[in-house]
Amino acid sequence: MSTAIKRQDTTAAYATPLVFEDDKLVRFHHCDPAGIIFFPQYFIMFNEMIEDWFTRGLGVSFADQVVTERVSTPIGRVECDFAAPSKIGDVLRFALRVDRIGTSSLKLRFEVRHGEEVRVRAALTLIRASLETMKSVPITDDLRRRMEQYLATGA
Amino acid sequence: MSTAIKRQDTTAAYATPLVFEDDKLVRFHHCDPAGIIFFPQYFIMFNEMIEDWFTRGLGVSFADQVVTERVSTPIGRVECDFAAPSKIGDVLRFALRVDRIGTSSLKLRFEVRHGEEVRVRAALTLIRASLETMKSVPITDDLRRRMEQYLATGA
Amino acid sequence: MSTAIKRQDTTAAYATPLVFEDDKLVRFHHCDPAGIIFFPQYFIMFNEMIEDWFTRGLGVSFADQVVTERVSTPIGRVECDFAAPSKIGDVLRFALRVDRIGTSSLKLRFEVRHGEEVRVRAALTLIRASLETMKSVPITDDLRRRMEQYLATGA
Amino acid sequence: MSTAIKRQDTTAAYATPLVFEDDKLVRFHHCDPAGIIFFPQYFIMFNEMIEDWFTRGLGVSFADQVVTERVSTPIGRVECDFAAPSKIGDVLRFALRVDRIGTSSLKLRFEVRHGEEVRVRAALTLIRASLETMKSVPITDDLRRRMEQYLATGA
Repeated sequence: MSTAIKRQDTTAAYATPLVFEDDKLVRFHHCDPAGIIFFPQYFIMFNEMIEDWFTRGLGVSFADQVVTERVSTPIGRVECDFAAPSKIGDVLRFALRVDRIGTSSLKLRFEVRHGEEVRVRAALTLIRASLETMKSVPITDDLRRRMEQYLATGA
Repeated sequence: MSTAIKRQDTTAAYATPLVFEDDKLVRFHHCDPAGIIFFPQYFIMFNEMIEDWFTRGLGVSFADQVVTERVSTPIGRVECDFAAPSKIGDVLRFALRVDRIGTSSLKLRFEVRHGEEVRVRAALTLIRASLETMKSVPITDDLRRRMEQYLATGA
Repeated sequence: MSTAIKRQDTTAAYATPLVFEDDKLVRFHHCDPAGIIFFPQYFIMFNEMIEDWFTRGLGVSFADQVVTERVSTPIGRVECDFAAPSKIGDVLRFALRVDRIGTSSLKLRFEVRHGEEVRVRAALTLIRASLETMKSVPITDDLRRRMEQYLATGA
Repeated sequence: MSTAIKRQDTTAAYATPLVFEDDKLVRFHHCDPAGIIFFPQYFIMFNEMIEDWFTRGLGVSFADQVVTERVSTPIGRVECDFAAPSKIGDVLRFALRVDRIGTSSLKLRFEVRHGEEVRVRAALTLIRASLETMKSVPITDDLRRRMEQYLATGA
């Protein structure tokens, strides 16, 4: 398993925010007739990152939330820059950081690298919402505390 | 065929920019366990709009460009706001407008409505690029003239 | 709209079964790094055909079934032969015929042609099932009568 | 990493064929409004299995074949039975076995289990083909020898 949960600054004397990382292989089915990732596939991969962050990074099963609690985190806003193309066979390092936690929304930052090269940078705003009513619901205190470990504080 | 190419202001005495429109049915395969469009599917639909705009709106076959000329328009930047969810069976009106034409890039605006309700607004920056080298290439004068008909001029 | 509902033998003096047809454009997002349709995309297109057959061919809204009645037709078995590849820009003629109607299952045949060339032939067995229990439910008499118009009778 | 390459019968005194196995998590993006895997997603997962079998099971990089050698293994025929639905959060065990190796074709068998329950069984016939000409090419002796380790011999 390639997932890593790391301190953002491992040399700091004080606690630094966590970052949730995972490697993803660029597969045949991600690629288009140009032989590179078709851009909507990145958003599917970001969604996988969100699932795995909940389940493995926050310790809150994403599937249970959808099936049992009927809450999820649909996307409210996307900003995304594609800096360089990715080809089949590339192994990409995805990193997820928390930028802001609101009452019922959440802003996440994604960075995708191939070695040192940045391929994609994105910010996604998620809305905590009921799957029954599709209305926003507050982020619970327990969930908020778990998320705050990943929150970039100041500076 | 639901496609429409319309003047943006049909009451104006002077020529107004064109807008490229099409209706799309929200299908079973677009939807997630919440019963609404899974957001990356919108980007696939925007890509369909770009294909059809080239072929039917600009009179330049998108497929021929990819297969014969080996040029395409990969995405450089996405900004997208999801204002309201869309459910299976909804018929959505997609509208494409041109916001800016650069040397080798192009900024398009998309609006998705269900009746009067805005569901999604997006801006996509496209890079004219060779599929052989993945490097940007200038937009030709002929293609530029065709695109300029859709360009929102001033105000 | 390219959809056609036709008698299978338009020269026959007697009533022949209906066939449900539609044209589909091979799009950029269907294609893989070989520049041809990635085969799972055909199954998504077959699913679109099933949706449209219910709604336009049988007069029973597929979306209403899913959302309101909570019944659908998940797939029990697939047999599919890929005879020749399809490229971006090809317009393919999809034809759907009914092969057998059981108590709660249904066998459909699909043929995909580009001009005279057969590209794909498939048989899909669908199970009428409740979306709440995921158990099979009988096909209602009303729905059965509508489907029987498409049933290849005899020979 | 969950991948396993195992002898099919670990109690046999003689060499038994290899089987290539991997676990896959059922994700949000695999599932439909019924909350279960949308069936074409299984074919995408079979394709992932084929990629990983080449790269990790046969020691022949799938990506290099596509990018450098320009050969691949498009699908000629699919037979697939869906025995039971799979829900978001399920971890499924995929197993790949070789059923037959021809001059330029290959028949693979897939079994998907959740614990002891069989969810899906499939047979896929792959055609070794040039990505330049889309014509079949012979399977090389070296590749054949690697594949034969997975071939169910007799009985």
